Amino acid sequence: MGRTSDAREKLLAAALNLIWSSSYGAVGVDQICEVAGVKKGSFYYFFASKSELAVAAYEAYWQAKLPDMEALFSPAVPPLQRLESFCRLGYEAQRQKFEEFGFVVGCPYANAGSELATQDVRIRMKTQEIMERVTGFIERAIQDAAQAGDIPPLNPKSAARQVYSVILGGLLRAKVENNPDVLADLGTTVLHLIGVPNDCLVA
Amino acid sequence: MGRTSDAREKLLAAALNLIWSSSYGAVGVDQICEVAGVKKGSFYYFFASKSELAVAAYEAYWQAKLPDMEALFSPAVPPLQRLESFCRLGYEAQRQKFEEFGFVVGCPYANAGSELATQDVRIRMKTQEIMERVTGFIERAIQDAAQAGDIPPLNPKSAARQVYSVILGGLLRAKVENNPDVLADLGTTVLHLIGVPNDCLVA
Repeated sequence: MGRTSDAREKLLAAALNLIWSSSYGAVGVDQICEVAGVKKGSFYYFFASKSELAVAAYEAYWQAKLPDMEALFSPAVPPLQRLESFCRLGYEAQRQKFEEFGFVVGCPYANAGSELATQDVRIRMKTQEIMERVTGFIERAIQDAAQAGDIPPLNPKSAARQVYSVILGGLLRAKVENNPDVLADLGTTVLHLIGVPNDCLVA
Repeated sequence: MGRTSDAREKLLAAALNLIWSSSYGAVGVDQICEVAGVKKGSFYYFFASKSELAVAAYEAYWQAKLPDMEALFSPAVPPLQRLESFCRLGYEAQRQKFEEFGFVVGCPYANAGSELATQDVRIRMKTQEIMERVTGFIERAIQDAAQAGDIPPLNPKSAARQVYSVILGGLLRAKVENNPDVLADLGTTVLHLIGVPNDCLVA
């Protein structure tokens, strides 16, 4: 494998998957190169360090998923349905990974932020940047829901951050319990948090 | 430093603080021994591995904090105040760490679970066990609040898990943004989630 853009893509994919399913600290450059089928010399042609590769891998994964996010959060979709679908697809994605690997792997960005925020400012800031983009999608859905009268008036930015907290906390609990079903009622919880009555919560 | 129980305590404290402020993967046994001022031979007298030390360190930290938790969640304290105080003390603890280290360090158990759940079953299960204990305190406060008529009737176990998700997600966002003030309104969010009107959410 030479210094082709194909090698770069393979390094990005290998880094994302290896770090996501284990951790940043547990994965070395040698292992990433081996899984990617790329020589170490090529690695350092593209990336100065594992950290630089990880930042590029998270951005590449976000860009790859962006069309799905835009479809999911399209203004053509009723606003509460956008939030419900986002939660449901998150649950389904974790179930699928669990069936594939035997583990709930959680959110790749959240994992990176949790492990590395105090150690690697570039990874922390990339994680923060991507989380702000996700929050933006949630915020617009909440704003549209309030304007449509689906929910009471509220501060969409503040509510979006709270909603995202519930989602991130749920993903973490699912990972710690190694049980994707922790996320089964995530959509209901999110809608309840922004003012939709939650019959599931009532005893 | 010999094979004394003092050496064991020093290893536990060094492991907790080093891993908490960086990550499990970034910290080696040599560094833990150096910071603890304990010889490597003594390390292996007490612990078979870094993993075994980490499990013991999390349990020791929980036991050290347990009297504070019991006071905070005492049945003598009004139930909603227990939850508010827990959130406020969490915020203050993160502020204090931030002023000390320049970083929001998050929750030591959540960090360990996020980094290691797919890699180390003993650390995953210790994290899960401690999180269940925290959930138990939250659940009793919610149950007492509902019985006192402070909040509408709800399923305390389910509500406690949702409340803990919001807290864990908030801690993660604070770490990723390196800003403890993300947690400033955590208590309000938690009370809102269990049915207390949240004026701060209203625009």
